[in-house]
Amino acid sequence: MGKLLVVGTVAFDAIETPFGKTDKILGGAATYIGLSASKFGVDTGIISIVGGDFPEGYLKMLQKKGIDTSGVEIKKDGKTFFWSGKYHNDLNTRDTLITDLNVLADFNPVVPEKYTDSDFLMLGNLHPSVQMSVINQLTKKPKLIVLDTMNFWMDSALEELKEVIKKIDVITINDEEARQLSGEYSLVRAAQKIHKMGPKYVVIKKGEHGALLFNDGNVFFAPALPLEEVFDPTGAGDTFAGGFIGYLASTHDISFKNMKRAVIYGSNLASFCVEKFGTERMENLNHTEVVNRLQQFKELTQFEIELK
Amino acid sequence: MGKLLVVGTVAFDAIETPFGKTDKILGGAATYIGLSASKFGVDTGIISIVGGDFPEGYLKMLQKKGIDTSGVEIKKDGKTFFWSGKYHNDLNTRDTLITDLNVLADFNPVVPEKYTDSDFLMLGNLHPSVQMSVINQLTKKPKLIVLDTMNFWMDSALEELKEVIKKIDVITINDEEARQLSGEYSLVRAAQKIHKMGPKYVVIKKGEHGALLFNDGNVFFAPALPLEEVFDPTGAGDTFAGGFIGYLASTHDISFKNMKRAVIYGSNLASFCVEKFGTERMENLNHTEVVNRLQQFKELTQFEIELK
Repeated sequence: MGKLLVVGTVAFDAIETPFGKTDKILGGAATYIGLSASKFGVDTGIISIVGGDFPEGYLKMLQKKGIDTSGVEIKKDGKTFFWSGKYHNDLNTRDTLITDLNVLADFNPVVPEKYTDSDFLMLGNLHPSVQMSVINQLTKKPKLIVLDTMNFWMDSALEELKEVIKKIDVITINDEEARQLSGEYSLVRAAQKIHKMGPKYVVIKKGEHGALLFNDGNVFFAPALPLEEVFDPTGAGDTFAGGFIGYLASTHDISFKNMKRAVIYGSNLASFCVEKFGTERMENLNHTEVVNRLQQFKELTQFEIELK
Repeated sequence: MGKLLVVGTVAFDAIETPFGKTDKILGGAATYIGLSASKFGVDTGIISIVGGDFPEGYLKMLQKKGIDTSGVEIKKDGKTFFWSGKYHNDLNTRDTLITDLNVLADFNPVVPEKYTDSDFLMLGNLHPSVQMSVINQLTKKPKLIVLDTMNFWMDSALEELKEVIKKIDVITINDEEARQLSGEYSLVRAAQKIHKMGPKYVVIKKGEHGALLFNDGNVFFAPALPLEEVFDPTGAGDTFAGGFIGYLASTHDISFKNMKRAVIYGSNLASFCVEKFGTERMENLNHTEVVNRLQQFKELTQFEIELK
C-alpha cells in the first residue's frame, strides 16, 4: 500500500441549493479528497492552512478517519478560507457569492518530513505555484502525481499551470476546462493535445454525464450513477479525485486496467457525496454501502455481446 | 427472426454544419431507421409518403438494402416533405430553417397486407394520429412496439400522444423531452413517471452523453463513442432507434439483457451515422466495421472489479 500526500484547501463553505441552505460548514478540496481516499485505508497526509476560527472538532474528525493532519498549518490570528455559492435549479450551474481567501492568500505549504517520500501525490485545486512548491519539496519522485485544477487558474496563471502540468502523470479537469486548455471542442482531440503538454493520463469529468479516462489511444468511460435526487453537488469532483487516487494508492497498481477501476471507484464515491449537504454523507459512509453501489455500477454498464 | 414494420418520414433534408452544407439530400426518420435496421438482415417494411419529385434512385437504394418500400405512397402531384436546418458550432443545438410538410400534411398511412402481422413495430417521429392509425391496422398484437417522438408533439398534440403512449412497450425520447413529458428534472424520476403512462421500457437519449434504458427498477447506460469529429448529427437518434429495434427483431428476444445489447448496437450505429453528411455513412457501412466498433464499445465500458 502506498503513502498518499494531498495538498488542497480546508475551508468553510456556505451552500444554497433548491433544497435548502447551510451556514458555514466544513468544506475544501483537501477535505473531500481526504475523506474519499480514507475509504481505502491508505496512509494519507493532507497539507493545507486554516485560521484560528477553525473548529478543532473538524480536524479531529479527519484524524479519526485515519487522515494525518500534521501538515495543516493553523494560523491563530488568521481566518479560514471561506467560499459561498448558490446552485441553480438544474444543479449543474452555480453562482459564487463570496470568496474570502483569508489565510489562503499567503499559503506556503510545508510537506511534513514523513510525507516527503510519498508514493502518490494529489495536487488539489489551488494556485499552481503552491502545487509546484509541494512537488519540489519531495525527496523522491512519486509513483504517480495527479493534478486537479480549474478554469480560474487557466485565466489567471496559465504559464505557471503549464509548468506544473509538465510534471504530472494524470490531470483531472471538467469538459469545459479541457476545451479551454486545449482549444479543441472534441474531447478526444482535447485529450490528445493535453497529453502533449505532459500528462500520460487525462481524466475529463462531465458531472452528471460521467467521466472519460484517456491514455494515448485508449479511452474508458465511467458513467455517473443516475440518481433520483442530487442534493448538493459541492465536492463531487474532489471526491471523485480522492476515490481515484485512494484506490490506486491502496492497490499500488497504476496500470490502465487498474485506472479503469479507479475511475469507477471515483464515480461511486462521488455519487454518495451529492446525496447530502457538504461532507455529511462522506463522513458516515460505510464499506457495505460502497460495495453495494459497485454492484449497481456493474449492472448499469456491463453487457455481453459476441463479436461476430 | 421477426418481421419489422417502420412508419416515419422519407424526406429531403438540406443541412448546414460548421463543416459545410448540402443541397436537398435523402433524409427522414424512416430512412435512417430502415438503413440502420437493415444491418441486421431483418425483413423490414417502411410506411411513408413522398411526392412526384422524389428520385426513384433513392427508393431503389433502400430496396437494395433489403427494405420493402411497397408501403411508401408516391403522390405524383405532390412534393416531398422538406426540412432544412443549421447546426451551431457545438453541433448540439440547431435552428430549423425550413419545414415544408408538403405531402406529409395529409398522410393516411396504409399498412401493406404483408406487414399487418408484424412482430416488431417502430413508430418513427410523426403526428401521434398517424402512429395510432398504424397500430390500429395491425391484425395481431406485435411482440414489441417502440415509439419515438419529440417535444413538438408534446406541445401540439399531447392528448393524442398520450393515447399512443398507452399502447406501446418502449419509448425513446431525449432528456429534455423526458423532462417535459414527466415534469420531473431527475431522469430517474422522469422514467418512473413515464412508466406509469404505459411503456415498460423507457430509453432516454442524451446525444453525445449516451443513452439510458430504464425498466422498472433496472437501469442500463450505453455511452456514445467519443469521436474525434462529429460531422453531421442529423439522423443519429433515428439510427439509434433503428439499431435498437433491428437488433431485437433479428434476435427475437426482448429480455432486459438483450435490450442492453440493443442499446449498445443503437449507439454503435449512431456513432457511424454522424461521421458523414446525411445517410452517406450508413449507406456504405459494412459488417466488419460494426463488429470492430463493438470491440471499442467493450473497451470503453467494461471493467473487472471484485466486490469485497
